Amino acid sequence: MTSNREIHLASRPAGWPTEENFRFVETDVPTPGPGQIVVRNQYMSVDPYMRGRMNDVKSYVPPFALDAPLDGAAVGEVVASEAADVHVGDTVLHGLGWREYALLDATAARPVDASLAPVSAYLGVLGMPGLTAYAGLLEVASMKPGETVFVSAAAGSVGSLVGQIAKLKGAGRVIGSAGSPAKVERLRALGFDAAFDYHDGPVRESLRAAAPDGVDVYFDNVGGDHLEAAISAMNLHGRVAICGMIAQYNATEPPAAPRNLALVIGKRLTLRGFLVNDHGDVRQAFLRDVAGWLRDGSLTYDETIVDGIENAPSAFLGLLRGENLGKMLVRV
Amino acid sequence: MTSNREIHLASRPAGWPTEENFRFVETDVPTPGPGQIVVRNQYMSVDPYMRGRMNDVKSYVPPFALDAPLDGAAVGEVVASEAADVHVGDTVLHGLGWREYALLDATAARPVDASLAPVSAYLGVLGMPGLTAYAGLLEVASMKPGETVFVSAAAGSVGSLVGQIAKLKGAGRVIGSAGSPAKVERLRALGFDAAFDYHDGPVRESLRAAAPDGVDVYFDNVGGDHLEAAISAMNLHGRVAICGMIAQYNATEPPAAPRNLALVIGKRLTLRGFLVNDHGDVRQAFLRDVAGWLRDGSLTYDETIVDGIENAPSAFLGLLRGENLGKMLVRV
Repeated sequence: MTSNREIHLASRPAGWPTEENFRFVETDVPTPGPGQIVVRNQYMSVDPYMRGRMNDVKSYVPPFALDAPLDGAAVGEVVASEAADVHVGDTVLHGLGWREYALLDATAARPVDASLAPVSAYLGVLGMPGLTAYAGLLEVASMKPGETVFVSAAAGSVGSLVGQIAKLKGAGRVIGSAGSPAKVERLRALGFDAAFDYHDGPVRESLRAAAPDGVDVYFDNVGGDHLEAAISAMNLHGRVAICGMIAQYNATEPPAAPRNLALVIGKRLTLRGFLVNDHGDVRQAFLRDVAGWLRDGSLTYDETIVDGIENAPSAFLGLLRGENLGKMLVRV
Repeated sequence: MTSNREIHLASRPAGWPTEENFRFVETDVPTPGPGQIVVRNQYMSVDPYMRGRMNDVKSYVPPFALDAPLDGAAVGEVVASEAADVHVGDTVLHGLGWREYALLDATAARPVDASLAPVSAYLGVLGMPGLTAYAGLLEVASMKPGETVFVSAAAGSVGSLVGQIAKLKGAGRVIGSAGSPAKVERLRALGFDAAFDYHDGPVRESLRAAAPDGVDVYFDNVGGDHLEAAISAMNLHGRVAICGMIAQYNATEPPAAPRNLALVIGKRLTLRGFLVNDHGDVRQAFLRDVAGWLRDGSLTYDETIVDGIENAPSAFLGLLRGENLGKMLVRV
């Protein structure tokens, strides 16, 4: 057996993280005990929420420990098993990314169907980002056919699915914001009715131009000026599903916006924060819908793949800078 | 017949309004046309939302016109009628306060039952403020028995009812904030489990001390630091019913955002702005409950009554400064 390579959290960032916050560590490949398996990871996910876990604050998930491997979603092949119902050669989804070999209880792994889609899809369109988009749009924001939907970070793994699912579920108009001309072009190719680069001017003005009749649903991945602009553009009884606020994950000062929150009264707006973990009840509907859309080609997903576990930190930093199109993955 | 006296908007305030923004005008007592009635107002309401209508901005109600009488809820006695089903001597609720004699279509008046409660109650506990408290707490925030409820401006007409209705509907703990020691004392007498004067220190600290196990429902009448403190203290899946943001009605600069808004994600909070107009569907349940509570003495309401139509502007200004206990009314 070869050695196992993994990424540890070396220090907690203040503001933007850097490569120095990570440490590359070589260990022995683990051996499974009773009921355990060892998985050789093929792909691991880097996600914006991981930035919050680098801080030493209580939140909905515990912070990453210092001088220990980070973790997160990964898919890989079982290479050793001491569990009756998991076999060497199986492909499984689990929560111990950021390492080449993961040792875990077999009960913490979920088998994936590699015949339905490439296994990497279980970290994106068929996984947590896909369910986040689906549940946030249809359950949290209760999107109805004919409505106008705005999504920020629209070229990202969640945002690009929000926009497409909105269209597939009958939205009247779908608008996305993104951070480069290439991403804006991609959004148009994905079927967004309008898209803008938020560097091109105040978000409020760009959104007004893209949504002259207002916005009914805003799927927020960004916070800050995007949220303020959306509140300003919302129609009566509009709903905001708050999924993330990446604009401020690396901020060292409290955010200044939204300054127009009082508009929620007269417009009777609803703002709801959510976590995908609460929405397992729609997983079956999600898988049925998405599998069907993937089969008939009506849903497209992008992946930005970085090669090599040693490049996982730079993949994560690139994600925070918006260097990904669609799902950011590391091929281990 | 005597003359009619009414209050006009003389100019639009920038920041805090003053007496100079109002003008006292004498006119003739109107004569009803077909289908119309004339009401001699006995009580008129002053409400925080009227401050917004003094600005020349589009909102959920049109702005007050310059050089014309203001308007708002009032109750009075019909003194002339050209409508078949409304009779001289009837007591009615309608929308043309700020004047002694109101001329209106009979269809715009609602008869009130003066045997159930003093007629002034139809501007408070049995009227718009009562329904606002009831619908906001039970419908918008979906308060459940056993939960902890926090309400700001708790000694005001809406807030004092929110706290009492919460207790009557089984809240586990009810906390109120107010602006003076006398108000805090009054809240304790009304059955609030805890109350604090927001001048006594940062709201965040006072609320934490009053709600050591967190808050499930926040009924927001204030915005600003109260909203930020509530978000900080909220428990998982907490709900905020946003009724008003009086802290900023007279602000000339945009308010800072609640700087902790990102907490709505991990805590899965829901913030909903609402207007009482949307909740007519609970009016029957509201009237049944409140009439019962008034009959058996389990619900108490305070009124601060200012005498004389000529003092309506100062009553309104006093309301904005928090000089009222319970409903602020003008006896015309």
